[in-house]
Amino acid sequence: MSRVSFPKDFVFGFSESGFQFEMGLPGSEDPNGDWWAWVHDTDNIRAGLVSGDFPEDGPGYWHLYRMDHDIAERLGMDAARLGMEWSRIFSKPTFDVKVDYSLEKRYITHINIKEEHLKKLDEIANKEAVEHYREIFQDWKARGKKLIVCLYHWPLPLWMHDPIKARRSALREGPLGWLDKRCVIEFAKYVAYVAWKYNDLVDAWATMNEPNVVYSQGYINVKSGFPPGFLDLGAAMKTMMNMIEAHARAYDAIKISSKKPVGIIYAVSCIEPLKSEDEDVARRARRESTYAFLDAITRGVIEQGNIIRDDLRGRLDWLGVNYYTRLVVTSDARLGWRAVPGYGFLCQPDSLSLTGRPTSDFGWEVYPEGLHKVLSDLYARYKLPLMVTENGIADKSDRLRPRFIVSHIHQTYLALKEGVDVRGYLHWALVDNYEWASGFNMKFGLCQVDLKTKKRYLRPSALIFREIATRKSIPEELQYLTEPPC
Amino acid sequence: MSRVSFPKDFVFGFSESGFQFEMGLPGSEDPNGDWWAWVHDTDNIRAGLVSGDFPEDGPGYWHLYRMDHDIAERLGMDAARLGMEWSRIFSKPTFDVKVDYSLEKRYITHINIKEEHLKKLDEIANKEAVEHYREIFQDWKARGKKLIVCLYHWPLPLWMHDPIKARRSALREGPLGWLDKRCVIEFAKYVAYVAWKYNDLVDAWATMNEPNVVYSQGYINVKSGFPPGFLDLGAAMKTMMNMIEAHARAYDAIKISSKKPVGIIYAVSCIEPLKSEDEDVARRARRESTYAFLDAITRGVIEQGNIIRDDLRGRLDWLGVNYYTRLVVTSDARLGWRAVPGYGFLCQPDSLSLTGRPTSDFGWEVYPEGLHKVLSDLYARYKLPLMVTENGIADKSDRLRPRFIVSHIHQTYLALKEGVDVRGYLHWALVDNYEWASGFNMKFGLCQVDLKTKKRYLRPSALIFREIATRKSIPEELQYLTEPPC
Amino acid sequence: MSRVSFPKDFVFGFSESGFQFEMGLPGSEDPNGDWWAWVHDTDNIRAGLVSGDFPEDGPGYWHLYRMDHDIAERLGMDAARLGMEWSRIFSKPTFDVKVDYSLEKRYITHINIKEEHLKKLDEIANKEAVEHYREIFQDWKARGKKLIVCLYHWPLPLWMHDPIKARRSALREGPLGWLDKRCVIEFAKYVAYVAWKYNDLVDAWATMNEPNVVYSQGYINVKSGFPPGFLDLGAAMKTMMNMIEAHARAYDAIKISSKKPVGIIYAVSCIEPLKSEDEDVARRARRESTYAFLDAITRGVIEQGNIIRDDLRGRLDWLGVNYYTRLVVTSDARLGWRAVPGYGFLCQPDSLSLTGRPTSDFGWEVYPEGLHKVLSDLYARYKLPLMVTENGIADKSDRLRPRFIVSHIHQTYLALKEGVDVRGYLHWALVDNYEWASGFNMKFGLCQVDLKTKKRYLRPSALIFREIATRKSIPEELQYLTEPPC
Amino acid sequence: MSRVSFPKDFVFGFSESGFQFEMGLPGSEDPNGDWWAWVHDTDNIRAGLVSGDFPEDGPGYWHLYRMDHDIAERLGMDAARLGMEWSRIFSKPTFDVKVDYSLEKRYITHINIKEEHLKKLDEIANKEAVEHYREIFQDWKARGKKLIVCLYHWPLPLWMHDPIKARRSALREGPLGWLDKRCVIEFAKYVAYVAWKYNDLVDAWATMNEPNVVYSQGYINVKSGFPPGFLDLGAAMKTMMNMIEAHARAYDAIKISSKKPVGIIYAVSCIEPLKSEDEDVARRARRESTYAFLDAITRGVIEQGNIIRDDLRGRLDWLGVNYYTRLVVTSDARLGWRAVPGYGFLCQPDSLSLTGRPTSDFGWEVYPEGLHKVLSDLYARYKLPLMVTENGIADKSDRLRPRFIVSHIHQTYLALKEGVDVRGYLHWALVDNYEWASGFNMKFGLCQVDLKTKKRYLRPSALIFREIATRKSIPEELQYLTEPPC
Repeated sequence: MSRVSFPKDFVFGFSESGFQFEMGLPGSEDPNGDWWAWVHDTDNIRAGLVSGDFPEDGPGYWHLYRMDHDIAERLGMDAARLGMEWSRIFSKPTFDVKVDYSLEKRYITHINIKEEHLKKLDEIANKEAVEHYREIFQDWKARGKKLIVCLYHWPLPLWMHDPIKARRSALREGPLGWLDKRCVIEFAKYVAYVAWKYNDLVDAWATMNEPNVVYSQGYINVKSGFPPGFLDLGAAMKTMMNMIEAHARAYDAIKISSKKPVGIIYAVSCIEPLKSEDEDVARRARRESTYAFLDAITRGVIEQGNIIRDDLRGRLDWLGVNYYTRLVVTSDARLGWRAVPGYGFLCQPDSLSLTGRPTSDFGWEVYPEGLHKVLSDLYARYKLPLMVTENGIADKSDRLRPRFIVSHIHQTYLALKEGVDVRGYLHWALVDNYEWASGFNMKFGLCQVDLKTKKRYLRPSALIFREIATRKSIPEELQYLTEPPC
Repeated sequence: MSRVSFPKDFVFGFSESGFQFEMGLPGSEDPNGDWWAWVHDTDNIRAGLVSGDFPEDGPGYWHLYRMDHDIAERLGMDAARLGMEWSRIFSKPTFDVKVDYSLEKRYITHINIKEEHLKKLDEIANKEAVEHYREIFQDWKARGKKLIVCLYHWPLPLWMHDPIKARRSALREGPLGWLDKRCVIEFAKYVAYVAWKYNDLVDAWATMNEPNVVYSQGYINVKSGFPPGFLDLGAAMKTMMNMIEAHARAYDAIKISSKKPVGIIYAVSCIEPLKSEDEDVARRARRESTYAFLDAITRGVIEQGNIIRDDLRGRLDWLGVNYYTRLVVTSDARLGWRAVPGYGFLCQPDSLSLTGRPTSDFGWEVYPEGLHKVLSDLYARYKLPLMVTENGIADKSDRLRPRFIVSHIHQTYLALKEGVDVRGYLHWALVDNYEWASGFNMKFGLCQVDLKTKKRYLRPSALIFREIATRKSIPEELQYLTEPPC
Repeated sequence: MSRVSFPKDFVFGFSESGFQFEMGLPGSEDPNGDWWAWVHDTDNIRAGLVSGDFPEDGPGYWHLYRMDHDIAERLGMDAARLGMEWSRIFSKPTFDVKVDYSLEKRYITHINIKEEHLKKLDEIANKEAVEHYREIFQDWKARGKKLIVCLYHWPLPLWMHDPIKARRSALREGPLGWLDKRCVIEFAKYVAYVAWKYNDLVDAWATMNEPNVVYSQGYINVKSGFPPGFLDLGAAMKTMMNMIEAHARAYDAIKISSKKPVGIIYAVSCIEPLKSEDEDVARRARRESTYAFLDAITRGVIEQGNIIRDDLRGRLDWLGVNYYTRLVVTSDARLGWRAVPGYGFLCQPDSLSLTGRPTSDFGWEVYPEGLHKVLSDLYARYKLPLMVTENGIADKSDRLRPRFIVSHIHQTYLALKEGVDVRGYLHWALVDNYEWASGFNMKFGLCQVDLKTKKRYLRPSALIFREIATRKSIPEELQYLTEPPC
Repeated sequence: MSRVSFPKDFVFGFSESGFQFEMGLPGSEDPNGDWWAWVHDTDNIRAGLVSGDFPEDGPGYWHLYRMDHDIAERLGMDAARLGMEWSRIFSKPTFDVKVDYSLEKRYITHINIKEEHLKKLDEIANKEAVEHYREIFQDWKARGKKLIVCLYHWPLPLWMHDPIKARRSALREGPLGWLDKRCVIEFAKYVAYVAWKYNDLVDAWATMNEPNVVYSQGYINVKSGFPPGFLDLGAAMKTMMNMIEAHARAYDAIKISSKKPVGIIYAVSCIEPLKSEDEDVARRARRESTYAFLDAITRGVIEQGNIIRDDLRGRLDWLGVNYYTRLVVTSDARLGWRAVPGYGFLCQPDSLSLTGRPTSDFGWEVYPEGLHKVLSDLYARYKLPLMVTENGIADKSDRLRPRFIVSHIHQTYLALKEGVDVRGYLHWALVDNYEWASGFNMKFGLCQVDLKTKKRYLRPSALIFREIATRKSIPEELQYLTEPPC
């Protein structure tokens, strides 16, 4: 190995969401989302479903965005993926802005949003929030940087989803969020409005972040502490279908006012078979976990090809890949397949996986080659521009992050060299964040944040990142970090 | 320290339940209980709420009871607490055996079970199961041993509780188990029948095992994977009240045919304040966790004394104490109080607690002095004969169990010496068992069980136990094990 | 596996030496040996060559032998190998008791010890010590037990070896111990005297314990803190040759008065090649470490066959095998061969070896199959009765010892079943001992000793040992301990 | 804390020695020193006294100095302390260049080196080596950097010290190095020559590196594997006295041709009492370990003031402080005082000290506040300019080094702020080095070295160092690293 150089237009940057970063200083609170209600729910806290930490004690990006942009700039970053909170823009329902839509069978195949609707939406939108996001985006753009805006990173407005009520009623009483078809329509309005409002500042759009996590954690892996935490496989499937549709309608909605590429950000694990006999179930697991969703919004294929929906087809200009580690799967008599403990996401914290690789504070195995694999597989299947939209590690003491960064960037390089059209690498995260049900314990930041003073401190890995980002190459003197530790 | 001798009539023995030990060999399966349905539920397995292990792969006590009794005898044990499964005796509903009962307000204050009812119950009882339990009990009694029978150790008949349906419907559709008042009545019938049937063999009765765990895990700590796993504080409280009443009615029902003492077995943690300012919340936590229930069935006091119910008062002849470790509590603005991680039940597995004490495979701190404290406190408050009905440790490699056993027996001795009327020490467990939602991973046995061959193997601690049990004293040469390791 | 039974005359017992066990209570001190001087030397302590612990703070067997014999009896032991201290019997020089001897070349091929010499020795022998050893031996024999006496377990009388002076003078000034030919003669006198004196009580004799350790630690591995700690390969070789000769002359000396079998006790590691290419150097290492010495005293072969000495040939009736772990060796350009770190003796304490096996507090890998191998190899080569004269583990917390004991006894059984004539298994140690330069930190006892009170406490493994020793078989219920931990 | 800024003329840099860094590529070998002989000695290797690694496989600074200077420059370094090897300059004896000297009692109080001697020395000096050092020095100076040259960093020419012979003969046969008075004279000649030769390039001189380590490891702590590894307290004391005198004569010798400040580099531990009662022995330990030597060459005081020697007094212009960790001492009946295991240098590798601080791969406790203390104490006592001439950590994985660097630089800052005249901080080491008897296992480098390819790789901590060195301040965003990890 010697030259590991990226093209000039390959971007290095950071990724963040609204809920996990914005709050922290007085005036930054947004109590209008389902996640806010969820993490403050006393029963949830007592049950240990959520940490008892609160996002209003967070890093405070809402006020400190300039400071964070300064840091990002100094670290050589040229792109950011930022999140917008629907519940900030529309803290009150948008139902009254009536739009027409086509219903075929039970599918919403088209939503007819016109300028008049956008103007009405503008009237009921939260002016202050609209303006504040503009300031944030402008500050970043003024530095000559790329801006990707993600329109949904998990919180839904409370008027669209009351997760406590939903769970208490066994999903019989709502609002039920993505289980409610209206969510598709209201989401499209919100998205159309935002695209209309910020098109001048945004280089690329992502409709959603990790929809697959939303429905699997919310309705299947209920121990994860995600709303509404009600075990119901059918609800998971229905949510998936509605989110597919919502993405497609959001895609269309953006295109009304914007020519910028519209993508989705997906949580992609590298799924590997435990034994060679498990290759079939690994394929099945990949299909269920990843391809089912993405096939729908690219090829229009749903339910494994039994149905083709033209209204879904071709609704993806680029694909954001959030990669953390792998899943090793094996066949299971009852479940079809299951992930095997001791690998990937299913390891002990601060320990070693069964193959001797280090694991993060979260118990996630460091498995860089998986990033190469998923980039190659996704590109081979979809031939779309890719971007690594999240990659990082919960590593409070920064003992693993330097090597984590270099090796994952290196794996991205290997994919690129093989012809995969990957356009950038955005690290999760620039600063420590509020990690959903886990609260503040999981530290993903290149910068450590003192939650009391909100001061940012550089972890050593931040300097490693800077070395790479400023040169758009992995200098030879850091290449040893692409190898596993000896 | 030198002589640590127990009275001649102090018993050493083991404790076990039906569901966790009986199954294992063909013909031993009991699919009629709610726990069976719960641990086989595919959604539960997929969600990681239960382990995916099944009780029908268990140690097989149903067939191998003689082998286990042999071992217990060789280990010097002179008492056993065994469980009976309601769902084995009455796999079908007993509703049709109509009995009269008094209702005051919404309280069932008396159930009038007569011999005719017992005979009718005998007709619908599962003959084979009834006979088989008799064989098990006889085998143990024939060895000249003490027998304590516990009538409820968590599984309810499916016709009384469908936990999957209960959860799916947000507790709107049943049968709902202890949330259903009928459960009080049917339980009383079952108990009356069993007392009538086995009175000749049983030395003491326990109506229930750890009712407090049933309602707190079932409706509050839903991550624990207990049925029905539906977060509802109100349901927890209602369950608690119904179980109090059910205990009282079961007490009365036993007394119809049996003069043997009737007790309850309760999960008692040693609750300690984190800081001296927390003494108040510690008191409150003790009251809520332990005294509220026991005050009701001894003094008739409920809701902190606002109500006195004569139909509950005086319904306890003895108290079984299940002790594992402590809870360290502190005040919490939202919850009133909460347990502090790093102590007691809330530690990392196979590690050290915050005060440097070793922790079990379950992450439970070894805290022997807590046993002394709870025995003293309970005796001071209730002046009833006590028995340690469970005490043990998940310790696959037996690295902690030798010291665990000696130090906890020693703490029992200290309580005894101070005048506490404690009658025996029953270890959990004689052999490895099925640990509810955790499956077979947690190994509590003095004997290791090969689940394939069902062979039993002695752990070193079994020999330590034997040294003490056969002499009814801790020999000097083992007394070093009463001290923490150096 | 099911029956693992040993012949009735197979003995289970314990092994101990004088210096490491005798001292501890007032009046037990023996300051006349080289090891006493060595461990008290301030320079040695300051240099960290010895621990700074002192043998006079030891377990006190000199006074407490009855207590220890009681324990051994209760543990089902029927044999003991005890040590005698030359410096206790002859605290003053024996030079003046002149004996004739034949010198061929520079070899002492015969020493003519007659009854008159024995009587003269009796006059200068330390009466009290002579009588005290008799009492110890009698106490053991009176229990109907086997007694093996080892005549040299490392300390030499100070008049025969001054290790401080030896080192200070670069071995130019003495007395120089085994480097001095006179040591061969004086040792023979001492041995002849002891055999004459105690023949009635002793079932078998061992001339020496682990001569190979004496010269390799004393002159090669000088970091081990053994006297005289002077790096000199030539001195090591010369010591080896003198010890071979001393053994042969001691053998002859015992035979004057005793018909009991005379053996030697040797430290035997299981030497294995790192890679298949290393098989040659492994053979060489075995020859140099083990066969060179034993070939000399059985076949009379020295220096790889270039010399045959009749006066050495046939001087071995039985062979004691001290086995602890293995050595994995590889070829080395400078040294011929060397042991590889991460295996056998060269591991980290309380950790895992490179093949994942647990290691002791000393950093010695648990490697039971090596015992089987060395017994087979030694029997195939020498066709002499064997006995495991030492086997045990430094394991303060007794986390490894239960499995260690069962698996090593099981490997002995496997050798026996294959036809190896192994007569017994003596555990090191009954109680915690003074571990030479390491002091009291390394705990080898089945019993823990409180060095302040001298009280003995049973470790759990003692009870495991008892289960096996009392039945002369490994009961089925302990056979799981023959397998590595899972 | 906010501004942590150093004066402009405060230097940041690196320290290195000849033997540990120079060799590595063909032609760089220097087989003429005692350390070369020592580490190649087969007996030493077999005994484990030395690692079996060889300096000729080292980082290769002799050829790669430009590369390392490039790195240092890029890391913002403005000073280097480099070592010269006496055995390279004079591979043959210099005895024949006769000089006059004054002998008072047995003291060499003056050596009369004249230009004629220097010219004769020039004739027998190794031209190539002389020239090569000049190239190295010039390369560094040409970058505008400060150069400190240390004239003795442990190897002595073999013609002055044969450590194998010395040990073999119990120090009776030589050459015996510093035990030989001639060493004082020959050292002065070598030093005079070098000062005469390189004065134009050198900013400051150090006569010796850590003389205290030379005599304590060589003659007391013989397990450390330092030549000649012969336990002899008297020899240690004599060596100390000769090195004091050698320093003074070297000081004078430099002053013949150079006006640059002449210092010594000393290994200073922070010596602390275990308990308050130990304050006296702590004082004694500080005096014996540090002040005895330094008092002699500053105040002329030897043997605690009984003797004042004018020929020693005032021979120090500056003092180099090598600081790694502390020693916690307690009183000891036999030794006066001893260091307590579990603190400072006496901890387990990669673990925690008894006070919970992390320890290095060498088992050295991270104890930054000790640096502040020793700087303050030394300045208070001697009022001389100080420089931190070594400070660093063996930390292969770089998990501790980032915090180690920042906190030690911060402690230096605290001393400075209090008025201590500390002029710079030189890190040990720029690149991984040959760590004497420990070989290549202990990794001290800011840069990792691939010993096969000789490539240098940046550890993350190198970037941390650069942040500080380039600004001559600890930026706020790194100040969290001055606190212990949470």
